[in-house]
Amino acid sequence: MDEILKTVLKRIKPSEAERRRLKKVADFLLERVDSTCKMLNVPARAMLVGSAARDTWLRSERDIDIFILFPEDLSREELEKKGLAVARKVAGRKGKEQYAEHPYITTEFDCFDVDLVPCYDVADPSKIKSAVDRTPYHNRYIQERLTPKLADEVLLLKRFIFGAGAYGAELKVQGFSGYLCELLIMYYRSFKETIGAASKWSPSTIVDLGNSYPDKAEVRALFQGQPLIVIDPVDANRNVAAAVSVQNFATFVRECQDFMRKPSARFFFPREVKHLTKKQIEGILRCRGTYPFCIVFKSPNIVADMLYPQLRKTERALVARLARAGFEVIRSDVWANGKSIILIELIISELPKVQVHVGPPIKVDVGDFVRMHLRSKRKFAGPFIDNSGRLIFELERRQTDARAVLEQVLAERASFGRHVAEALAKGHEIFEGKNISKLCADRKACEFISEYLTRCLPWYR
Amino acid sequence: MDEILKTVLKRIKPSEAERRRLKKVADFLLERVDSTCKMLNVPARAMLVGSAARDTWLRSERDIDIFILFPEDLSREELEKKGLAVARKVAGRKGKEQYAEHPYITTEFDCFDVDLVPCYDVADPSKIKSAVDRTPYHNRYIQERLTPKLADEVLLLKRFIFGAGAYGAELKVQGFSGYLCELLIMYYRSFKETIGAASKWSPSTIVDLGNSYPDKAEVRALFQGQPLIVIDPVDANRNVAAAVSVQNFATFVRECQDFMRKPSARFFFPREVKHLTKKQIEGILRCRGTYPFCIVFKSPNIVADMLYPQLRKTERALVARLARAGFEVIRSDVWANGKSIILIELIISELPKVQVHVGPPIKVDVGDFVRMHLRSKRKFAGPFIDNSGRLIFELERRQTDARAVLEQVLAERASFGRHVAEALAKGHEIFEGKNISKLCADRKACEFISEYLTRCLPWYR
Repeated sequence: MDEILKTVLKRIKPSEAERRRLKKVADFLLERVDSTCKMLNVPARAMLVGSAARDTWLRSERDIDIFILFPEDLSREELEKKGLAVARKVAGRKGKEQYAEHPYITTEFDCFDVDLVPCYDVADPSKIKSAVDRTPYHNRYIQERLTPKLADEVLLLKRFIFGAGAYGAELKVQGFSGYLCELLIMYYRSFKETIGAASKWSPSTIVDLGNSYPDKAEVRALFQGQPLIVIDPVDANRNVAAAVSVQNFATFVRECQDFMRKPSARFFFPREVKHLTKKQIEGILRCRGTYPFCIVFKSPNIVADMLYPQLRKTERALVARLARAGFEVIRSDVWANGKSIILIELIISELPKVQVHVGPPIKVDVGDFVRMHLRSKRKFAGPFIDNSGRLIFELERRQTDARAVLEQVLAERASFGRHVAEALAKGHEIFEGKNISKLCADRKACEFISEYLTRCLPWYR
Repeated sequence: MDEILKTVLKRIKPSEAERRRLKKVADFLLERVDSTCKMLNVPARAMLVGSAARDTWLRSERDIDIFILFPEDLSREELEKKGLAVARKVAGRKGKEQYAEHPYITTEFDCFDVDLVPCYDVADPSKIKSAVDRTPYHNRYIQERLTPKLADEVLLLKRFIFGAGAYGAELKVQGFSGYLCELLIMYYRSFKETIGAASKWSPSTIVDLGNSYPDKAEVRALFQGQPLIVIDPVDANRNVAAAVSVQNFATFVRECQDFMRKPSARFFFPREVKHLTKKQIEGILRCRGTYPFCIVFKSPNIVADMLYPQLRKTERALVARLARAGFEVIRSDVWANGKSIILIELIISELPKVQVHVGPPIKVDVGDFVRMHLRSKRKFAGPFIDNSGRLIFELERRQTDARAVLEQVLAERASFGRHVAEALAKGHEIFEGKNISKLCADRKACEFISEYLTRCLPWYR
């Protein structure tokens, strides 16, 4: 295993030249932020944060995160105004305004992706005004404790999780952040120890680096329903792993189990998804024998961190309504890239006319339930009592066709994400059955459909 | 309500002439049993039991039950030999031997159905040798306590339950015995009070006439899973309502609720089931849009009390296997009368090729599960992790056709009733879809299918 890790590390760790280049760019930008502050008479200073600041960046990452720290007594309005002014000036014409909790600027500089983020320089990290204010504390906490040896271990862990597709705390991924990887390595002291421990994790695992909670039950109550709980040593009220979905948690645990059983470099460098041709897609769909639907529409103009939760909420609403109408969904997924796709795959597309309606439990008076259906034109049989003692009516099903249900739900748009609902209202297309292969004209959409149909944990590809 | 009950009672209570006639026949038979005992030098005596002995028989019932009581020290072999000898002699050539826990003779005499049952005259009813030994105690218990006024109330209750199709403790019906009706009336003191109380029953209701148990929790533990618990005042270890199924329990409670809401004679005299024509049956099936299957075979030569549990066990096995294969059963039923029918109605008859296989929970090593399916020719996708964190493979379904599953299960015959399995092995036919209307050539089978398709609580017919 050590041989494998050594080889992997060599491939993923930036060379001396690469480091020098990043340092040069970062120093240049820091200096430019500070001088711009002075020039504009703004009481702020620049700080390099993130993996670039801690030497925990992978060769494949090209991010430079610079925070612009303002004194706490400044109003939020002032901070946003002055912060953006400085950032815009530094970024120049290539700068793009982005919105998280408050606005920031992204730009490109010498092939690096640069984020310029105004924030408050707070005195107490448990009393922040916005999530970004915590970042300088994270930065100091890690910088003070992470040795170069541990930084290498972080690189291995990050790449390992990246290999499983679970790296990144953004809402598109719902995975492990860089800071989370750093904390795990600081807790378990090495990549191998981390993997060994994680292979035995079960949901609601607790990692409490600073021993903030003597009582584990309290932690579980505090962070209920979150599969992984890593207490932030900088703010004990926060779970650093809050973004990690159950799916990514389980994926990581399975990856650790599989790696422990048979270590290999393929966990770090899995094969790419093979693009299927239109013909191949149609062939697979014919074999599966299911009824896939793709709802396609122009993506609303919002950031990915807003779009993906809305797409998933809409997906859930569609699946729930179809299930309620009796149509079982075998699998579903969402995708976005200019246009958005919600893919829903059904076991059947038509149901019989008759549908079972179950009455209230025995203690409840059924007068109304019976009166409502007894003389109904929709009645086939009932009321009668089934083997479990439930009162049953067999009535005519209102919709026997899945597509009709889908279209009705798309017309109502209840419990959809707001911007997604608006975008759907403006127009959408439904592709059905083998017609979804038509979406493959778009190379990226083809990758989505190919991955969906050949889905597999990356290290088994 | 009192008017209704008065009218009903008039219709169901035997006239003086009818009573005299029954008494004459019963006395004659009792005398003949006693004299036959003497003649054959058998140390036994006759006892009239059941509703005839307690004046709780309905005009429509024509049963005379005579028990032949033997001393406790006689061996079981001797009892069976001598008991049957006496009974055979009394019954004459029309007598038929039947087997319950031990053998007895049924015959017809002057338009009455007569049972002649040998049993032990035990000193302690909690130490009986066979279930029938308890009957003389039941008889004495009721005879000593039931006034003519209460006997009338019993008649109303029996007819009321008969109207719901829930009268009779035999396993074909799984309903309320006459003795159970008598105990309920003795406990609640009138028909009206019984109905009022039962309309508020919920599962695991306890009626403890003799106050045998101070602790209700003990009773529930003792008779777990039984919806109605009526402690036998003659033997506190026995639930008189043990035969009552959840379905009949709930039917009775609903009947009481409906009767309380709007009393009517139709609860006692519901309409008959309308026979549907072949055309009507085909029309209803077309409208329902489901996939019904009838498995038809010659009934094995066993008593109804053995046949029906075996038919239901076979029905359950078929339903469970179909469900396991992904075919949802909307309703099913069994019927017997010379030939046996198991009717199973499916929502769909074909499933897609792809089938979801869920792996073990996260704590369990999945090495074997993955190895088994990873290179399988049956694999569509997987292993991957779904939203709930479960490990999933999508594999080729072995059987996509419901009829093929049904035929395979009928070939294996696992978990079927023994005699039913043997009868099925000798030969069976499967009628599918609208072809089940062909069974209507048999009038009785037509009634079964008509009732199934128009199923409705009798008082709503």
